[in-house]
Amino acid sequence: MITIQDIQQAAQRIKPYAHHTPVLTNESLNQIVGADVFLKCENLQKVGAFKFRGACNAVYSLTDAEAAKGVCTHSSGNHAQALALAARIRGIPAYIVMPNNAPSVKKNAVAGYGGQITFCEPTLEARESSLERIRLKTGANVVHPYNDERVMAGQGTAALELLAQIPDLDVIITPVGGGGLLSGTAIAAKETKKAIRVIGAEPEMADDAFRSMQAGKIIPSENPKTIADGLLTSLGTLTFPVIQERVEQIVTVSEAGIVASMKFIWERAKIIIEPSSAVAVGVLWEKKIDLSGLKIGVILSGGNVDLEKLPF
Amino acid sequence: MITIQDIQQAAQRIKPYAHHTPVLTNESLNQIVGADVFLKCENLQKVGAFKFRGACNAVYSLTDAEAAKGVCTHSSGNHAQALALAARIRGIPAYIVMPNNAPSVKKNAVAGYGGQITFCEPTLEARESSLERIRLKTGANVVHPYNDERVMAGQGTAALELLAQIPDLDVIITPVGGGGLLSGTAIAAKETKKAIRVIGAEPEMADDAFRSMQAGKIIPSENPKTIADGLLTSLGTLTFPVIQERVEQIVTVSEAGIVASMKFIWERAKIIIEPSSAVAVGVLWEKKIDLSGLKIGVILSGGNVDLEKLPF
Repeated sequence: MITIQDIQQAAQRIKPYAHHTPVLTNESLNQIVGADVFLKCENLQKVGAFKFRGACNAVYSLTDAEAAKGVCTHSSGNHAQALALAARIRGIPAYIVMPNNAPSVKKNAVAGYGGQITFCEPTLEARESSLERIRLKTGANVVHPYNDERVMAGQGTAALELLAQIPDLDVIITPVGGGGLLSGTAIAAKETKKAIRVIGAEPEMADDAFRSMQAGKIIPSENPKTIADGLLTSLGTLTFPVIQERVEQIVTVSEAGIVASMKFIWERAKIIIEPSSAVAVGVLWEKKIDLSGLKIGVILSGGNVDLEKLPF
Repeated sequence: MITIQDIQQAAQRIKPYAHHTPVLTNESLNQIVGADVFLKCENLQKVGAFKFRGACNAVYSLTDAEAAKGVCTHSSGNHAQALALAARIRGIPAYIVMPNNAPSVKKNAVAGYGGQITFCEPTLEARESSLERIRLKTGANVVHPYNDERVMAGQGTAALELLAQIPDLDVIITPVGGGGLLSGTAIAAKETKKAIRVIGAEPEMADDAFRSMQAGKIIPSENPKTIADGLLTSLGTLTFPVIQERVEQIVTVSEAGIVASMKFIWERAKIIIEPSSAVAVGVLWEKKIDLSGLKIGVILSGGNVDLEKLPF
């Protein structure tokens, strides 16, 4: 299991390349949710998502000999862009397996960051076998989007930074998909400040983490359908034990709550967040648990949305 | 004429109430414009615009006896919201004259901040006579949106803050409407750093400041039509002399350049800017003057847009 030292080392490692993102406050939001909310803006991170932290830490953890062979992953989301950019900064190849039905905006983004794309059939089996072929052929290092300790440690640096900016937080909320951000956050936060509460935010329509916590074992999601398209994945074997041990609870948010929270942040905080980020705000918006009067850090995970297809 | 000391005092005065706004950088933008651009995010200021700085400085410049009678202005834009909020924070009345055809979203915003609205016919004459009646009746202090030294000094605090954040800027660009932001910026910047260049950005379709600089006297705009609805006003008698003396030049930007710059900032920098802010980015986007290789501060003036009516 990763430690606070791993996260501190990751923070040093990625410091020259990642943005130190700002923390914003908004009085209208505070009034509506009845708490002091501190928005950690990972939507303003490079590639528009916290994913750059984990990818960058993985890329810069490699020895020169390892790095020379490049990195590879299968992903159609923010991780693909993040890994492509981190590799480009280090000057090494990034081989990205994407399903052939991925939106062209995502293909273009990965290609724009210099990623070498291999298309495959849109099944998990095809993605994994394509990746394995690339790995055998190139010797590239596989960087999983979340089930990878280097990635988890990198994602934890956002919470480390947030706690340096706002030390007296009572609670930190992050969205949970595969659990990379939530597990890294839990270790960073609980090891920095024992009494802090860490809460995961999940769409009702993709509640595998909620159900996994109830069951005490990983329950994979089955055909989840939510506007929060970054949170469709299930927990990983490395992320789940950390979450089970360090996260207080998973709170689920309705689709309407996600859209309303997203629109409110756009209108009032003047920043662009993607639906997956809005899930974390939605925990406060829907008030399913009582956090009134507390100082709450919310990690806004990303800002990658198609401006032509807004849900409001 | 206001001095750097006035601006420094304003900065102290508004510090407890205004946001210290972040400065963002974006590599894609840097590559496209061929310079190092530093975005000073006044769109993330309270009420979503730099206008809060000037209004707040004016409100807190009043003695207790003056303040007790309240403040008043005529405005249908960001200044009205800014003055209403600053007054509410000090606990005094704000009387706002608005044309009866102002969009309901703007009326609601002013009312939401506790402003007491008087509606009038949508002519300058009706606005001014309504304001005069209110002033005589209440004894409230008139706070003009830009032709007011307290307001100019307050607006100058954004550049003061930016230069503390990024001391080695070569150029600062701000949008220019009535000239409150540009004049305050010019004094703050040139008195902090003699060699810095200050440039005003104006829509081609509302180019009164450009023409006034050419003519050496104030040339009011006549029926300007631009998407940058915050920049329709003409220069004031207090702002023009400052701009004439301290601003290197006014650069005009096409409507297409404004929209393209706005969309680029939304998509890549993940922040919401209004068209008036995009005018300042447009100077770099359209490359009408050569600023390549320089360190350029751009003051993003505001982020108040109607999400239901996007130009892209």
